[in-house]
Amino acid sequence: MPRLLALACALLLAACAAAPAGDPMAGPLTLQSQGSFFIGGRAVHSDTLSTLPAYAPSGTVAVDQMYVRQMTPPNASPLNVTLIHGCCLTGKTWETTPDGRMGWDEYFVRRGFATYVVDQTWRGRSAGDIQAINAVRLGRAPATALPTVFAAGREAAWAIFRFGDQYPQTNPGLRFPLAAQEEFWKQMVPDWLNAQPTPNPTVPALGELSRRLGRNVLISHSQSGIYPFQAVAQNPAGIAAVIAVEPGACPNAAADVTPYLHTPMLVVWGDYVPQAPRWAPRLVNCRAFVAKVVAAGGKAEQLVLPERGIHGNSHMLMQDDNSLQIAGMLVDWIGANAR
Amino acid sequence: MPRLLALACALLLAACAAAPAGDPMAGPLTLQSQGSFFIGGRAVHSDTLSTLPAYAPSGTVAVDQMYVRQMTPPNASPLNVTLIHGCCLTGKTWETTPDGRMGWDEYFVRRGFATYVVDQTWRGRSAGDIQAINAVRLGRAPATALPTVFAAGREAAWAIFRFGDQYPQTNPGLRFPLAAQEEFWKQMVPDWLNAQPTPNPTVPALGELSRRLGRNVLISHSQSGIYPFQAVAQNPAGIAAVIAVEPGACPNAAADVTPYLHTPMLVVWGDYVPQAPRWAPRLVNCRAFVAKVVAAGGKAEQLVLPERGIHGNSHMLMQDDNSLQIAGMLVDWIGANAR
Repeated sequence: MPRLLALACALLLAACAAAPAGDPMAGPLTLQSQGSFFIGGRAVHSDTLSTLPAYAPSGTVAVDQMYVRQMTPPNASPLNVTLIHGCCLTGKTWETTPDGRMGWDEYFVRRGFATYVVDQTWRGRSAGDIQAINAVRLGRAPATALPTVFAAGREAAWAIFRFGDQYPQTNPGLRFPLAAQEEFWKQMVPDWLNAQPTPNPTVPALGELSRRLGRNVLISHSQSGIYPFQAVAQNPAGIAAVIAVEPGACPNAAADVTPYLHTPMLVVWGDYVPQAPRWAPRLVNCRAFVAKVVAAGGKAEQLVLPERGIHGNSHMLMQDDNSLQIAGMLVDWIGANAR
Repeated sequence: MPRLLALACALLLAACAAAPAGDPMAGPLTLQSQGSFFIGGRAVHSDTLSTLPAYAPSGTVAVDQMYVRQMTPPNASPLNVTLIHGCCLTGKTWETTPDGRMGWDEYFVRRGFATYVVDQTWRGRSAGDIQAINAVRLGRAPATALPTVFAAGREAAWAIFRFGDQYPQTNPGLRFPLAAQEEFWKQMVPDWLNAQPTPNPTVPALGELSRRLGRNVLISHSQSGIYPFQAVAQNPAGIAAVIAVEPGACPNAAADVTPYLHTPMLVVWGDYVPQAPRWAPRLVNCRAFVAKVVAAGGKAEQLVLPERGIHGNSHMLMQDDNSLQIAGMLVDWIGANAR
């Protein structure tokens, strides 16, 4: 009898699932699966792992691996989405916004995409290499051997994130939820990018993840903006499209753009860019890159939100008050363009 | 018409939800909500945030905050569960096992608990403080001012995790999925515990999280084993129970146990402990603590798995091949004992 009831329920549920859907943004979130894993990494042997008696100084550790967390909806699209954070941040970027709204991680799942959120190598849950710190502490290396690491203070980050020209002045019409800024500053972590080789080990890891997934849309932000382009240049297999959200750099428009001609690409910009000394030339360079790709027969586009009548977006547009509207535009672009 | 159909479906779904449930461990995972946030943290001003021209050396950063990720099922229990990882690891500990099975994070959700997974302060997505590193690099402080940090090499960690007495010898009957050990080593990260004050800032953060949740079961592991006890001693409000999985330490049995008399406590141990020099005395000390609490009228228990006929568990028992069986025992204990 319970088995018969279960069967009846399964049939009814299937019928209801086929019924006109309600708002996919409302109600419980159903996942076919969720979980996490690592991509890449290498074993390193060191004699300066520890200065403490309780832990051996010599041994083998894994570094350069990339942490990946996934959520997959039922009946997922064959296209997957991977979200790659920027400078001084982690995958937290894409989760719940500082003021408690839905992050892009959940949005893309609700729109039907298996969604992967990474921590760049040496950041967040992806281990960095600290052996040089202990070598200096033990007097076996000079202070100049210390790894390059920096933390972005809020006063300087303020202009970089385009909350305003200068801390604490605010850009007019700003959509970033500044009332929750304390929660945002807590998202920031030390950045070990400059202690790592170029291209960053995150780049081949993104390529490997894409080949494993088959059809992967790489969505980068800021510091990681160049990574998907570098991954395409290394091996475009599995990369269904690239969306660079306010990239720190696009590929050089003066160089050969042949590697980019078979991958659809979108570059997205928020507001206040022309007045921002750090960002204005980057937008110009990306526009030149996009134009050259298009002229050569590739598929590339630059989406400058103010040119579409959308104003007030900061550099952290995945956390601005219209973040889901922008994500929706990306979903539309993916549907029309991804391989 | 679509509205009528939706109403009919809602009614049918409700009826089906009330029907005898199938295996709660199988099928899609339904979440009422999921997301992440921070607890705690303090603003620190520094003049050595950076040695790079692109980033200002002076500014304010947030440190000591604790990253928390939550998944909440529909109709969640009034009891919440918080999972706290140990040495050299992050919240990844509780997610998908190295060989790809369900982690305790999802298990507790499927058993009806809103489940919170944290990264200890200065670890994973919880920012550490790097200003001393740059002070040394800039010649403003001696090498001895460098923060204490260590990475556990796999050769030494092998015995600590009780995979065997000595790398790479394996304990007979070991349940840890050693075939996937490369994926496990990638979980390990540098550990900054010793660069932080005692008690670790994670401790007051766990207390604050518990008060916010109302009824919270703190489940710690190894290095973090003592944290829930310290949180109870600071302020037991909101802490519904403590489960210490293979704690690095229990409170001192020779000291006053009064602070612990009103919080149900369970200490859990795997196999091979008596032969492990690092762990054997810890089990003995915890047994003495538990006995003293019970003698004083408190509610405490020590669960030694081999004494219940369950053999082969390593220190990483949340990843062993019977990990969900053990989690099920914890759910039973919570149901019978938590406040």
